[in-house]
Amino acid sequence: MSSTVGKVIRCKAAVAWEAGKPLVIEQVEVAPPQAMEVRVKILITALCHTDVYFWETKGQTPVFPRIFGHEAAGIVESIGEGVTELKPGDHVLPIFTGECKECQHCKSEESNMCDLLRINTDRGVMLNDGKSRFSINGKPIYHFLGTSTFSEYTVVHVGCLAKINPAAPLDKVCILSCGLGATLNVAKPQKGSSVAIFGLGAVGLAAAEGARIAGASRIIGVDLNPSRFQQAKNFGVTEFVNPKDYDKVLIEMTGGGVDRSVECSGSFRAMISAFECVHDGWGVAVLVGVPNKDDAFKTHPMNFLNERTLKGTFFGNYKPRTDIPNVVEMYMRKELELEKFITHDVSLSEINKSFDYMLQGESLRGIIRMDA
Amino acid sequence: MSSTVGKVIRCKAAVAWEAGKPLVIEQVEVAPPQAMEVRVKILITALCHTDVYFWETKGQTPVFPRIFGHEAAGIVESIGEGVTELKPGDHVLPIFTGECKECQHCKSEESNMCDLLRINTDRGVMLNDGKSRFSINGKPIYHFLGTSTFSEYTVVHVGCLAKINPAAPLDKVCILSCGLGATLNVAKPQKGSSVAIFGLGAVGLAAAEGARIAGASRIIGVDLNPSRFQQAKNFGVTEFVNPKDYDKVLIEMTGGGVDRSVECSGSFRAMISAFECVHDGWGVAVLVGVPNKDDAFKTHPMNFLNERTLKGTFFGNYKPRTDIPNVVEMYMRKELELEKFITHDVSLSEINKSFDYMLQGESLRGIIRMDA
Repeated sequence: MSSTVGKVIRCKAAVAWEAGKPLVIEQVEVAPPQAMEVRVKILITALCHTDVYFWETKGQTPVFPRIFGHEAAGIVESIGEGVTELKPGDHVLPIFTGECKECQHCKSEESNMCDLLRINTDRGVMLNDGKSRFSINGKPIYHFLGTSTFSEYTVVHVGCLAKINPAAPLDKVCILSCGLGATLNVAKPQKGSSVAIFGLGAVGLAAAEGARIAGASRIIGVDLNPSRFQQAKNFGVTEFVNPKDYDKVLIEMTGGGVDRSVECSGSFRAMISAFECVHDGWGVAVLVGVPNKDDAFKTHPMNFLNERTLKGTFFGNYKPRTDIPNVVEMYMRKELELEKFITHDVSLSEINKSFDYMLQGESLRGIIRMDA
Repeated sequence: MSSTVGKVIRCKAAVAWEAGKPLVIEQVEVAPPQAMEVRVKILITALCHTDVYFWETKGQTPVFPRIFGHEAAGIVESIGEGVTELKPGDHVLPIFTGECKECQHCKSEESNMCDLLRINTDRGVMLNDGKSRFSINGKPIYHFLGTSTFSEYTVVHVGCLAKINPAAPLDKVCILSCGLGATLNVAKPQKGSSVAIFGLGAVGLAAAEGARIAGASRIIGVDLNPSRFQQAKNFGVTEFVNPKDYDKVLIEMTGGGVDRSVECSGSFRAMISAFECVHDGWGVAVLVGVPNKDDAFKTHPMNFLNERTLKGTFFGNYKPRTDIPNVVEMYMRKELELEKFITHDVSLSEINKSFDYMLQGESLRGIIRMDA
């Protein structure tokens, strides 16, 4: 048993003291896990747009000081009371949404929107006692998405940890995103079909990777930024369209519409186009990108009556504990490529560089190594 | 071979000379079937709201004089060139939409929206020569939906005829509607689930019948007219809601939303409610009712992102020639009940009574017997 079990751990973490200000590497205290919690030694974390979005705090509730980070890989250091599925030494991926395995959503085969552990961007504390496990000189530093992986150690609810194959390289499998599942689990394109992907950031490219894996013969990328087209070719995207002409162009290009579309930009205009560009009779559009608070989706009802389907997904409909270990196995079998998503690799002390790369639009996923 | 083959048949038909004016029983001339056409002796026809809607011509293109009628059953009298699947004496149901078996929609397993024979409410002529097969003293009387079943004989494209079990009682199986397929083929409720039906007319009650057949444990009827609730009990509807309170009431009644909803009223407000009342994580809403030209479906995109699905259907996704014979078999096995839909039974000479019953809201399906 590790000598740290049951004790406070002092370690390095990147703390966001204020909205939009550079993170500061601090010595933080990480309390032991309480009931149903697990303390994890983070080895690798990645930076995702969602971290940047809540760090910038444009309209969201400001929760500071806070430790961001939600895509990561690590090893269990110790477990709290009632945890039976994990033990120290297990390799895990912290996930920003959870699976309690007991609520109606977890019991449904179709849903992954756990009542207990569903994503909560405002909560900065743990469920068990409503307090943070992080502190500096006794003052709490808040959690983010229940994961807070920009720290050498973090405490996570057991329902937000996927136990993975210990042979998997942690610096690759830490970056699984929702786009892949949106295509494979929800849009489900048939072999030889056409798929349009709206928004060619990391999520959209993961959706394209899903379409490639499913055997789509045409993968049409739609983005406002044509500089993304070159990169997207590495993800199997075969054709490109600029949004200013999308609807009719897509319908003409495909003789009546695409078989499937996946919307990853979060723009409500793109959502409407993604729906209206699918073929009547069988077309399915899937929404992934998160809209603004006041956006509306609007279309003529006949577009539905002509046998089109619109559905949304959250985290690609993956159940974190049940399904994510299998996605790691897809990578291990070389069906899924992850290397091409990783555009930068920095150490924890350089984490602000990773933010800069993303803000400059140069980054898909930046890897941050805790031990570097 | 019948002595009428290849000759014009003179017979009775109910002709609509003008929009909204009582039909007149006339002697009409029915020309022989041309290539890919079939002449059918109609024994039984039913009256559906769609006939009344296009007869009233509120906003639609007026096509008069015209022979209405599209739900019916009959026997093949003679066939035109190229017809191989049907022969004189076969029992058939004319269907208002067709299945050519050659276009991309017919070849798709998912679609029934045939490119060649898809419903066309404005066309009053046959495809082969762009002319009508009906006339009085040489002046054309126009077709309706390619079926025109308010006539003792009619001419129909072979792709719009379902060949059925000759043992099936024609005065029952003539009334198959789109509601049943909307539930069984598209909403697909699981055994024990909850289903909300918006609009308790004949289509909505057929959707309820589909939910009953699928084994739904709660079937919640939603209608502006509470007088429909009593009748709906015979169709397995277990609970009733008045639209003025629907959203929240339905969500409270079902602990978060219904598993499935089917919208049969055509009101865009009901469409929005039908979508927003399904449970997050797995809820599916299906649109059947036809909206007005200027209606819009509008909702916040988060309602989709929380894993709700919205899809529309046309004729319950049934392919007329492939699937309808099997629906007749469901009736023959007593899985599907049709008797309860039939509220009136008149002879052709009394056809205007059937229109009156429907306009007064007293009718689900009125049967019209041609031989009476």
